[in-house]
Amino acid sequence: MIGRLNHVAIAVPDLEAATAQYRDTLGASVRPPQDEPEHGVTVVFIELPNTKVELIHPLGDASPIAAFLEKNPAGGIHHICYEVEDIAAARDRLTAQGARVLGGGEPKIGAHGKPVLFLHPKDFNGCLIELEEV
Amino acid sequence: MIGRLNHVAIAVPDLEAATAQYRDTLGASVRPPQDEPEHGVTVVFIELPNTKVELIHPLGDASPIAAFLEKNPAGGIHHICYEVEDIAAARDRLTAQGARVLGGGEPKIGAHGKPVLFLHPKDFNGCLIELEEV
Repeated sequence: MIGRLNHVAIAVPDLEAATAQYRDTLGASVRPPQDEPEHGVTVVFIELPNTKVELIHPLGDASPIAAFLEKNPAGGIHHICYEVEDIAAARDRLTAQGARVLGGGEPKIGAHGKPVLFLHPKDFNGCLIELEEV
Repeated sequence: MIGRLNHVAIAVPDLEAATAQYRDTLGASVRPPQDEPEHGVTVVFIELPNTKVELIHPLGDASPIAAFLEKNPAGGIHHICYEVEDIAAARDRLTAQGARVLGGGEPKIGAHGKPVLFLHPKDFNGCLIELEEV
C-alpha cells in the first residue's frame, strides 16, 4: 500500500540557521521558505536526489509543532510521509485494522496541495506518519 | 555534498510486531531480520520504491539504542542517513565548520558494509544524522 517516502520533516527552532546549515555545511539544494498559514508552519524544502527533507518552523500562535519544539528545544525529526495512491482507501484499510487517524479522520489538503492525513504515533512505534495521496 | 537519503531508522520495542505492521497493515515490502552484533541491533529493512526504512531493535546488553528506547518506550524515529561520495572529505568539511562527529571521528563499517559516521544531534537541529559513503 505505501509507496515512496515523500519526505522527512524536521522541526527546527531557527529556520534561517537550519536552512543555511543544509545549504552551506551539508551542501544540499535548498528552496526558499514558504509560509503555510493554514498548517501553522513555515517550510523550507531540501531537495535530495530521491526524496525531500522539510525543515518546519512554527507560524502563528497555534502552530501544531509548537508543543513539539517546547519538548525538544533543539528541534528533532517530527514526522515521515509515505505516499499512497488512494488516501480514502488507505484510511479505511488502516482504521479497519485498529489504527487511529488524527483529527476527524477526513483527509485535508497538505503543503503540496494534495490530500493528507496523519496516523497516531502510539499506533506506529512512536512515529508520526503522514500519508499523502499522489 | 549530501546525496540520497539512504534510510530512515525507527527504533521499535517489538521488532516482530513492527515488521508485521509494515508488511500487513501498511502493505510494504519487508526483508528478513538481520542481526548486526557489532552494532548492537537487529535490523529489518522496509524497501520503499525510492529509499529504505530500517526498523532497529536492541541486540545484546550494550546496544546503542537501549537508552533511546528507555526514554521512548513506544519507539520513535532514531536517525536519518544521508549518502556521501567521500566520507573522509565530508568529515573534514563538517569538523572544519565546527560540527562534531560522534565516537572518535573515524568512520566505521556500517550495516551495509560501507563506511559510516554519526554527527552530533545538538549540532543538527536535534536530529541524529548518519553519513554513509556510497
